[in-house]
Amino acid sequence: MMEMEQYSRWFYTQLRVRYQETDQMGVVYHANCLNWFEIGRTELIRELGIQYIDIEKRGLLLPVTELTTKFRMPARYDDQITVCTRIAAYSSRKLHFQSEVRLFSDEERNALDSSPSSTVPEGKLLVSGETHHVWVNRDFRPVRMDKEAPELFVCLEQAVERMDPDA
Amino acid sequence: MMEMEQYSRWFYTQLRVRYQETDQMGVVYHANCLNWFEIGRTELIRELGIQYIDIEKRGLLLPVTELTTKFRMPARYDDQITVCTRIAAYSSRKLHFQSEVRLFSDEERNALDSSPSSTVPEGKLLVSGETHHVWVNRDFRPVRMDKEAPELFVCLEQAVERMDPDA
Amino acid sequence: MMEMEQYSRWFYTQLRVRYQETDQMGVVYHANCLNWFEIGRTELIRELGIQYIDIEKRGLLLPVTELTTKFRMPARYDDQITVCTRIAAYSSRKLHFQSEVRLFSDEERNALDSSPSSTVPEGKLLVSGETHHVWVNRDFRPVRMDKEAPELFVCLEQAVERMDPDA
Amino acid sequence: MMEMEQYSRWFYTQLRVRYQETDQMGVVYHANCLNWFEIGRTELIRELGIQYIDIEKRGLLLPVTELTTKFRMPARYDDQITVCTRIAAYSSRKLHFQSEVRLFSDEERNALDSSPSSTVPEGKLLVSGETHHVWVNRDFRPVRMDKEAPELFVCLEQAVERMDPDA
Repeated sequence: MMEMEQYSRWFYTQLRVRYQETDQMGVVYHANCLNWFEIGRTELIRELGIQYIDIEKRGLLLPVTELTTKFRMPARYDDQITVCTRIAAYSSRKLHFQSEVRLFSDEERNALDSSPSSTVPEGKLLVSGETHHVWVNRDFRPVRMDKEAPELFVCLEQAVERMDPDA
Repeated sequence: MMEMEQYSRWFYTQLRVRYQETDQMGVVYHANCLNWFEIGRTELIRELGIQYIDIEKRGLLLPVTELTTKFRMPARYDDQITVCTRIAAYSSRKLHFQSEVRLFSDEERNALDSSPSSTVPEGKLLVSGETHHVWVNRDFRPVRMDKEAPELFVCLEQAVERMDPDA
Repeated sequence: MMEMEQYSRWFYTQLRVRYQETDQMGVVYHANCLNWFEIGRTELIRELGIQYIDIEKRGLLLPVTELTTKFRMPARYDDQITVCTRIAAYSSRKLHFQSEVRLFSDEERNALDSSPSSTVPEGKLLVSGETHHVWVNRDFRPVRMDKEAPELFVCLEQAVERMDPDA
Repeated sequence: MMEMEQYSRWFYTQLRVRYQETDQMGVVYHANCLNWFEIGRTELIRELGIQYIDIEKRGLLLPVTELTTKFRMPARYDDQITVCTRIAAYSSRKLHFQSEVRLFSDEERNALDSSPSSTVPEGKLLVSGETHHVWVNRDFRPVRMDKEAPELFVCLEQAVERMDPDA
């Protein structure tokens, strides 16, 4: 089964930058942005109706195999940032996310809550990136998601189908 | 069995402060010093002839139950610090460490390597603290170390006995 | 001026435990709980009407000089924890906080929001601790808060006075 | 001035994986590998005869603008890893590094120390990646390295020239 290049809608998670996430450059240490990507992915999956923690309890893990990130503007302590996450592709064995960290005005942020749409408002784009993942078991052997957790697989299918312009 | 108040000698571990450990105050974020305490404890146990990783593989864990720390002077990026660690007390169920983070001159550091002794050279004391631990199994139930890992228990006994002034 | 032993009310901050905060013991790495204490202190100050970031912009820092922590039960990935923070004492030069990390039911958490009171509901107490701080300038020299930032000092006074049983 | 695609030799830094770097998957949390890349870059620059801390003291910063990483095999607690770093390209405004995290046998590691060469021994490749950087001042405005720190620029030139097959 091929990896389908279909996008889900964007999902939004609000975070406040922690003091501990800064470094002596006076801005957020770059690697900490990847934790935000992770939080965005977790919340996306939660909104699909499934908790990542329950997937792990069944012995399925979703490690990152590859990532690319562009740091466009520094994030700063106490910033109220929005992590924007969407599924970019998936198959029975793989999952591919796109992530963006943006700084919105209060107004823009409130608009997000009331109408999640397929286009992300501008705001200030701080960081953007992609992460690739494979489904593995506790021994880090690849597994097929459609067999091991078919109900999650259906959720992913539905998430991207609803966005499919040709559907 | 009571917790015996006996000290081991001091053990030394050299570290260089990482950029990621700093925060926007321009010094090391306080909580990161506790990772250094952990590294000091791990290396102490390794010098006793046992690897902490092997203890965990047997299903025994040594979580921190209590800690106290005094931050005396800030540690800074690229500092070559020395973590000084000793056993302060132990029993079949508990372990209690003392930790100090000091900044030594190159000369003082070289002297440490050649003759580990019971007194710590002055240097500059940056952080000092104590951690209390209990031995537990994978379910976080307390276990008796003298029964579960007698050879490690013997190592601890020997480490403090060799320092016992009355022995 | 002596450090007055007066308590403010408890302030509450909700957090969800991050994957990155766990370690291979399967629970939160102990030092990460201290970041939660920090977040609790920041939000307490924000609720007093002042942003810690604005204090720093004026060149005033509030480093931790001493901390004590008891780890009672492990916090776990995806837990929705509540950081409870209150001022325990303050003077023109020092600040002393008490912190507790608790696990509440949804019901308990909602009750917190509607009526902040002087007693913390039970829940499950995971971690408790205290942190001591001094006010310093960018060169880490002690400063007097009542002179350098009198309006913040007034906020602290008011926060504890409102709780003073003899007032 | 264009970015020259010339490679320096590989530089090696030895690290032991910290407990705090693991997560509940039982392996190192992916974002922590990027700290190792950073340490590798710092030590490369130190071996060129310059301390990154001294560059920062002059008000020059080298933030990451872009990174790509492949996670091939998980790194585990207590692993003695080797961070392999080389300059991949540089100009007066930019710097581009390649990084690899490898697991060597004791023998392979000792061989590294005695003869740094242009080819990295096999070992087990755990993580590989690239980071792109720009030179900026304290206000995050781009600066020209050949003007602001010509002696460092010369070091970079020499590092790649010595490796130039056509030289």
